Amino acid sequence: MRTGIATVCLSGTLREKMQACANAGFDGIEIFEQDLVTSPLSPEDVRKMAADLGLTLDLYQPFRDFDSVTAELLAANLRRAEAKFRLMSRLGMDTILVCSNVATASIDDDGLRAEQLAALAALAQDHGVKVAYEALAWGKYVNDYEHAHHLVETVDHPNLGTCLDSFHILSRDWDTAPIESFNPEKIFFVQVADAPKLSMDVLSWSRHYRVFPGEGQFELAKFLGHVVRAGYTGPVSLEVFNDVFRQSDVERTAVDAMRSLIWLEEQSAKWLDANPAPVNAAENGAGIRLPGRRRYPMELATLPQVAEPGGFNFAEVRAADTAALETLLGQLGFASNGRHRTKNVQLWTMGHARVIINEDSSQESRDAGAAAAPAISALGFDVESPVIAAARAQQLKAPTVPRKSQADEEIFQGFAAPDSTEIFLCQGSPDGTAVWTREFGEGLEAAAAGRTGEQSAVIDHVNLAQPWQHFDEAVLFYTSALALEPQPYAEVASPTGLVRSQVMLTRDRGVRLVLNLAPLVQREGSGSGSGQRRTYQEHIAFAVDDLVATARAAKARGLEFLQIPVNYYEDLDARFGLDPVLLATLRDLNLLYDRDADGEFLHFYTATVGSVFFEMVERRGAYDGYGAPNAPVRHAVQYDHLHQLNRTP
Amino acid sequence: MRTGIATVCLSGTLREKMQACANAGFDGIEIFEQDLVTSPLSPEDVRKMAADLGLTLDLYQPFRDFDSVTAELLAANLRRAEAKFRLMSRLGMDTILVCSNVATASIDDDGLRAEQLAALAALAQDHGVKVAYEALAWGKYVNDYEHAHHLVETVDHPNLGTCLDSFHILSRDWDTAPIESFNPEKIFFVQVADAPKLSMDVLSWSRHYRVFPGEGQFELAKFLGHVVRAGYTGPVSLEVFNDVFRQSDVERTAVDAMRSLIWLEEQSAKWLDANPAPVNAAENGAGIRLPGRRRYPMELATLPQVAEPGGFNFAEVRAADTAALETLLGQLGFASNGRHRTKNVQLWTMGHARVIINEDSSQESRDAGAAAAPAISALGFDVESPVIAAARAQQLKAPTVPRKSQADEEIFQGFAAPDSTEIFLCQGSPDGTAVWTREFGEGLEAAAAGRTGEQSAVIDHVNLAQPWQHFDEAVLFYTSALALEPQPYAEVASPTGLVRSQVMLTRDRGVRLVLNLAPLVQREGSGSGSGQRRTYQEHIAFAVDDLVATARAAKARGLEFLQIPVNYYEDLDARFGLDPVLLATLRDLNLLYDRDADGEFLHFYTATVGSVFFEMVERRGAYDGYGAPNAPVRHAVQYDHLHQLNRTP
Repeated sequence: MRTGIATVCLSGTLREKMQACANAGFDGIEIFEQDLVTSPLSPEDVRKMAADLGLTLDLYQPFRDFDSVTAELLAANLRRAEAKFRLMSRLGMDTILVCSNVATASIDDDGLRAEQLAALAALAQDHGVKVAYEALAWGKYVNDYEHAHHLVETVDHPNLGTCLDSFHILSRDWDTAPIESFNPEKIFFVQVADAPKLSMDVLSWSRHYRVFPGEGQFELAKFLGHVVRAGYTGPVSLEVFNDVFRQSDVERTAVDAMRSLIWLEEQSAKWLDANPAPVNAAENGAGIRLPGRRRYPMELATLPQVAEPGGFNFAEVRAADTAALETLLGQLGFASNGRHRTKNVQLWTMGHARVIINEDSSQESRDAGAAAAPAISALGFDVESPVIAAARAQQLKAPTVPRKSQADEEIFQGFAAPDSTEIFLCQGSPDGTAVWTREFGEGLEAAAAGRTGEQSAVIDHVNLAQPWQHFDEAVLFYTSALALEPQPYAEVASPTGLVRSQVMLTRDRGVRLVLNLAPLVQREGSGSGSGQRRTYQEHIAFAVDDLVATARAAKARGLEFLQIPVNYYEDLDARFGLDPVLLATLRDLNLLYDRDADGEFLHFYTATVGSVFFEMVERRGAYDGYGAPNAPVRHAVQYDHLHQLNRTP
Repeated sequence: MRTGIATVCLSGTLREKMQACANAGFDGIEIFEQDLVTSPLSPEDVRKMAADLGLTLDLYQPFRDFDSVTAELLAANLRRAEAKFRLMSRLGMDTILVCSNVATASIDDDGLRAEQLAALAALAQDHGVKVAYEALAWGKYVNDYEHAHHLVETVDHPNLGTCLDSFHILSRDWDTAPIESFNPEKIFFVQVADAPKLSMDVLSWSRHYRVFPGEGQFELAKFLGHVVRAGYTGPVSLEVFNDVFRQSDVERTAVDAMRSLIWLEEQSAKWLDANPAPVNAAENGAGIRLPGRRRYPMELATLPQVAEPGGFNFAEVRAADTAALETLLGQLGFASNGRHRTKNVQLWTMGHARVIINEDSSQESRDAGAAAAPAISALGFDVESPVIAAARAQQLKAPTVPRKSQADEEIFQGFAAPDSTEIFLCQGSPDGTAVWTREFGEGLEAAAAGRTGEQSAVIDHVNLAQPWQHFDEAVLFYTSALALEPQPYAEVASPTGLVRSQVMLTRDRGVRLVLNLAPLVQREGSGSGSGQRRTYQEHIAFAVDDLVATARAAKARGLEFLQIPVNYYEDLDARFGLDPVLLATLRDLNLLYDRDADGEFLHFYTATVGSVFFEMVERRGAYDGYGAPNAPVRHAVQYDHLHQLNRTP
């Protein structure tokens, strides 16, 4: 599959965009006109630079409001088109995108439209240019891709074809199956974009909220499957208008974009395999189905295949001063397993819940100022084959993380998530144990004093704060590299704004990862251009069988619980009419409670150290949530604590 | 008019919200349930704190999904309601908001609904509580305020009334005139919110995009006029769900909120004056109209009245090192008028365009680090009466700016705009001169060398960068305090994202103020929680009669023009088919060009010094825009310059 991307997807100047596209490995680009108009590079400079970078210049775009006009306007439009055809010749480009008219269209007559498009095609032919005509979803008269294709068929000129854009098709819920019957020689170009399903006017939706494939909710594998089955062999090119991507680092966004196409390519191949095409009825009256992909001219590359991870292997917290962390874990009931024999890390366990405390704070993956304070630095996932999973992640352009190991130690395959959390791929085991824990034990004598009878626990979920400009990237990253499944996101009120919360799951719930996009907070008095901060707190939640017992034991050990307001329990009682004994227990132990049709959820939070806190949960019945109705309480209490700390001069 | 605000409008904890509301001068507040549930304050604490702060607790809200349910659910809902009634008694509150059911409603039967509301009203009566029933715009069966009112009339219980919320009514485009015929004793509460007109699902629109009155596009003066005419005398209370306000400084937002009600009160009084009510036909068959406001029990306060400003009196740029500014202004054709006799400021003029260079950089209204670099610090506006205009601004809670003056000098009335630009109200003159310029002249001998024959010019417009969290506030500020009229906003592409651009006008175009909301830019590698910056540049545009001559003279004086790419001129020619001589002139002088049905626009930009640059414009015919199609070129070239500077280590 030939990959492409429109320059409008990215931030920066045309030069920066082209460099980033080449670095990310794209085959070609679409030149968005405004990027050229605003550039100091001449068309010849752009042509040479693209050639030097190994990028093809696949599409010049957009040419707007051509068709369905009066004769006078047509003449002006043809003159305008000719200027662009001349420019394309200097750029060495041969395909231009012409969108259906939204603004100046005044005549609704397919015969006239075909005449006007024929005139354009003839002029294009004189200049060696191919016109790819596209139905915009909000085109005045032409807004259906089949309508645009019908016009192309009617004109039947070698220099006129159609451009299929997934957004314009899927935003209108058009059926994509008819694409299969298109003559592939008339499909001049294919653009792909994903989007969250929003109920708003389609123009605003298109201009601000498109995302890269895998970051939204469109059925793109199916769309592209139909395109492949039609026999199309040209570029599959991203055209994504997104307010955040326009503001984000161009190199990062280009890699995110490339990852989305690699993933889409694989998903489309899978869709084709899973949905074999009926043989053309005219050729084969019996309608025998042939295997899906065999006969299509476009090659679809696949990736190393991985099953979803079985669970969390470990979570790692990094800190310069580890005392507060050790105290907290000990009070929760974790046992110290001592130090690693060669690395400055400790292992704490509670059943199969493993927490590594990394005493090395020299790495600068977090804010320099906050480096000494505890922060979640890495997560280990149980996978069937770490080597295959790592190969897949690498093909998906996940940046690898080097980690030193001695000869006889287990080697973790690791890479960096978009928020720079390190992700390690570990060999899962059927019984939930981990071989590498044998490498620990040093210095255990000292820590053993605090050791208690080890209880059963597992990591239930991990909640990571995402930088605002990498949220969509993170969703695609975990979807594509780790086979997690994004759930519909929730929004939770906090004293500093709404927190967007996106759960990523495995089907058997062995892994639950929660991505939080916290609001920006503005410090007043610091003026424009500075003073933005995000109060980020992340946490690791452990599931136990008997939360009340766990909480009682933790309380007896002196744990500092997050203090839940009395008002909460009164509201809880009003909502659920709880048994008074249970209510008193909840209140006494600062436990939170939720209930739905599937079951019950009890949980509590510890105080925060650095940017980390811990949660203990008990799931009763088939409860599958995270106590979302209680999240505002947690946010409010944590805010109050933080605020009181900040008020101290 | 009694003013109120729901705590959900604001950021922070309940305690912080209450303090901010009291500081801003609200009479009362609505307690949003979640704010109480998440608070460590007991209901008794809240009651005492409100009393101490002089705030009434006007409404407890929301109570959801009560009506249209099965008998079993009704029993549970009544139990839930009773718990809340008891809580309200501890809070000393007597009114609760009950919203029409959106989630659990299963029976569409007005008779049953009336029965269930009657049961609730009876229970409420036992606890001394009044129920204000409100139709949510997305209520399952009840989503029209007249429907809700009809149910209230049917039940006819002293403890059941209706709540009118402008958002739920105006978002659905319901006619508001029928409110006038409501029995005022059945209107228990009135909530007001404004909103931009968006075409999206009404729930998302309501939950994220509401704004304070005057910041959106709803006809709130008319809405409130009808409410007043119905005879309502209770609180008029803001209920605004807004993602930005939830993140912003609570004290600032509360003042913004209060300003919106003061302005709305005045606008409603004006609406009533302008739209006299017909006398009740039953009382007066002749239908004689009586003056609008005479007989209504709610008192509406008015503000000192001001006409829109006649023009810009001056613009002031502050800098520690003023050399670059002086050079730029001199090259543009400005003449130095020397220093002020007592202050460290210079006056530069070109016709009636006056620029003050303030050599005092000690004030800390801008980033500390950028304080030395030139920045727009103040704007003077010509008004009929500075004293009256200042009194109006002060009543609208504009923070006053002290400015020292000697005995015989003109005293400027000044206040701070939301972006901390200082706004001065100056005595306008019919001939465009300013008396205070006589105070200048010191040191003129030295500067006079650069003096050229003074040309005619005026300040055409000023473009100010707005912090993201104060954009809506700024729109209301200039609307209410300066009588500028907001225009529909535009979005302009730049290399760092879309720039929202909001023009504020006077009717005769004497003042054109452009508020820009620039995107955030993320510096990579700086980690979460920091590294946000906004590249802000602001400018002052001067209109001249002959831009080409002005540009030629400036070029001859060595002005550094913003360099416009050649590609731009080729595109310009493709779009407009310009006369080759004009095109060559534009290109030669780095002029930009725009044309629409009303006329033509020629303009050029200078290089940027600090965060300031200048623009020279010529308007031909009735052209009323700002060359918006050229804005991406400007942004791209400025970005490129800034980026090259930043790349230098």
